[in-house]
Amino acid sequence: MLNYNAQGLIPAVIQDDDTAAVLMLGYMNAETLQMTKAKGQVVFWSRSRKKIWHKGATSGDFLEVRSIKADCENNSLLVRVRMVGGAVCHTGAACCFFNDVEELPAT
Amino acid sequence: MLNYNAQGLIPAVIQDDDTAAVLMLGYMNAETLQMTKAKGQVVFWSRSRKKIWHKGATSGDFLEVRSIKADCENNSLLVRVRMVGGAVCHTGAACCFFNDVEELPAT
Repeated sequence: MLNYNAQGLIPAVIQDDDTAAVLMLGYMNAETLQMTKAKGQVVFWSRSRKKIWHKGATSGDFLEVRSIKADCENNSLLVRVRMVGGAVCHTGAACCFFNDVEELPAT
Repeated sequence: MLNYNAQGLIPAVIQDDDTAAVLMLGYMNAETLQMTKAKGQVVFWSRSRKKIWHKGATSGDFLEVRSIKADCENNSLLVRVRMVGGAVCHTGAACCFFNDVEELPAT
């Protein structure tokens, strides 16, 4: 049984199955996890837009699912994917993790 | 500026800097992120125990920080680490992501 948070969401870490790069972190609810399994492509719940977010539906940069694992407490997911396009980030970057935290204030 | 959630937390994906394996996902608040930077070892906020959780303090399996990046929206962290011990999971497993989601009910 997966442990969704109070908002009914579970964080999903997206990792490139070929390069092992961590591409992004998104959130799924029970419905979008089910859609992800059914389509074989990553489908998130967008917290900002409050709607289903089929990754790549507008950009073409779909994420094909290779495997989905839950952690030991079933409160986060690791989704290994094949990138269909060259980018995962809305900025056009291949991966979303590029801000150096040393340069960011902690609060 | 990092975007902490309503509970003052930000998810931190922990990745082995040598093998690129995704080891676990934990949460930090501003204080434990600051401690993480200062110590050079991962310090989480334990949501279940509601206290500071210096990873490895009881097991010896510390996680030495190699780099910390925030994502494009500054609402999640990617922490690349060197594992001091052989395990990251409380089960003794090297990594926490071992539950096959195909075998778990979605809700």
